[in-house]
Amino acid sequence: MTDAKAAPWAFSMPYEVRDYELDLQGIVNNSVYLNYFEHARHSYLKAVGIDWAEMHEQGLDAVVYRIEIDYLSSLRSGDRFEVRVRAEMKGRFRIVFVQEAVKPDGVVASRTRVETVVTKGGKPVPPEPKMIELLTGRA
Amino acid sequence: MTDAKAAPWAFSMPYEVRDYELDLQGIVNNSVYLNYFEHARHSYLKAVGIDWAEMHEQGLDAVVYRIEIDYLSSLRSGDRFEVRVRAEMKGRFRIVFVQEAVKPDGVVASRTRVETVVTKGGKPVPPEPKMIELLTGRA
Amino acid sequence: MTDAKAAPWAFSMPYEVRDYELDLQGIVNNSVYLNYFEHARHSYLKAVGIDWAEMHEQGLDAVVYRIEIDYLSSLRSGDRFEVRVRAEMKGRFRIVFVQEAVKPDGVVASRTRVETVVTKGGKPVPPEPKMIELLTGRA
Amino acid sequence: MTDAKAAPWAFSMPYEVRDYELDLQGIVNNSVYLNYFEHARHSYLKAVGIDWAEMHEQGLDAVVYRIEIDYLSSLRSGDRFEVRVRAEMKGRFRIVFVQEAVKPDGVVASRTRVETVVTKGGKPVPPEPKMIELLTGRA
Repeated sequence: MTDAKAAPWAFSMPYEVRDYELDLQGIVNNSVYLNYFEHARHSYLKAVGIDWAEMHEQGLDAVVYRIEIDYLSSLRSGDRFEVRVRAEMKGRFRIVFVQEAVKPDGVVASRTRVETVVTKGGKPVPPEPKMIELLTGRA
Repeated sequence: MTDAKAAPWAFSMPYEVRDYELDLQGIVNNSVYLNYFEHARHSYLKAVGIDWAEMHEQGLDAVVYRIEIDYLSSLRSGDRFEVRVRAEMKGRFRIVFVQEAVKPDGVVASRTRVETVVTKGGKPVPPEPKMIELLTGRA
Repeated sequence: MTDAKAAPWAFSMPYEVRDYELDLQGIVNNSVYLNYFEHARHSYLKAVGIDWAEMHEQGLDAVVYRIEIDYLSSLRSGDRFEVRVRAEMKGRFRIVFVQEAVKPDGVVASRTRVETVVTKGGKPVPPEPKMIELLTGRA
Repeated sequence: MTDAKAAPWAFSMPYEVRDYELDLQGIVNNSVYLNYFEHARHSYLKAVGIDWAEMHEQGLDAVVYRIEIDYLSSLRSGDRFEVRVRAEMKGRFRIVFVQEAVKPDGVVASRTRVETVVTKGGKPVPPEPKMIELLTGRA
């Protein structure tokens, strides 16, 4: 789905599966990956100086518009992995986060593309140029 | 994404937002939709005589392979909605569940396509003809 | 723990286990019971005319202060059960919700006592007499 | 509730609040603390050589029997904290985990006592002397 080699990753953070995230098949439930990926996005935002919770205080909400996610290799009890993030613009409004979860042996557990929009009073607004630059590295 | 009118829905079930599903923006978190959709799929399976938990006991696991999901209109505290399901085959292995969450006024909150595979001992197997017929209505 | 027969229940609502709530032991994870009980409390509040999300909009937050919970009989895939609620005051500040989850055959899956306080600007305030009456049935 | 100074902690692990764990009040939902505490217990078990998921494979399940939890100070977006664990026996069957979540400034966010039993075929069994020694430090 995602040409993961198209650009370098901007951010990465380590995770460990928590047992409450498993379902009775003994694998991490499909919804939990969205939690992992969201936490990595918010941490990336914070790392470049953007605080998701503060944005909300200021009346700006970054909301998810569309997600594509491939589940390639199951995560199980005790598994450690890394979630990588980079961002790119799609049109004037959408910030797309390209992400993957990778195990220590290099096996990709999951890949995703998360399209987000910034909203103000419920309406989409184009992200500020400064924000775009911070996230994508491009002015 | 999904041409929701292409075929009739095979199954539908009612939901109500639970407050623990909201995030600080006051909207249902993106990952929770996957919970809603999964519960509706499993309920659909059960309605046609297939039990996901029993399948696991028998060494067969239905696992999610890929999800595409569009978030079209936020769900908030107290919102009621309905999740609709139908299934179709993609190739010989993948059972694709087409689903949507619709509010009482007809507004679609979210649409998804969930591609699943049945695995045995970790390897994909083609679903049995009986299962395909039960889920898709086609022999 | 709780003398469940001490007073009649004020509210009850039906539930069905959702498979994503199971852990790899095939039983509902301990944390999920708090979700069930919270949703029943908020629904009870709403039934008597108090909206938890609206309270928050008005600067009042009902927060949980202490929980005691007994897990008496596991909940499994497909189980249906009912959550019952009643409320009583403890001192001038704490609203205590007594709750139980009961299966159709009368087996109690879990009992809990949830002590909550209403806060304003982060400080506890005594709940209004009207609220106390609505919840406990006593002026 | 818990005299946290009665005995030294046996185990500790660091956490950071993830935004999907917040509810619309902007604080970590009460149920999520049970997730934090469970993950710390399982990590403690693993640290002393006991694997919860492997136990399940062998037909032994450690299940939660009763929880008492005090919520003393809210956790919010970005908060870091540490979860501490120690274990003691209660009678011949119950392993009680005493735990607390502490912020970097020493403020205790939450304290809990989690009573667990080991079950085999659904029936409680006394934990093996070796397990008791590993967890409580007492033969």
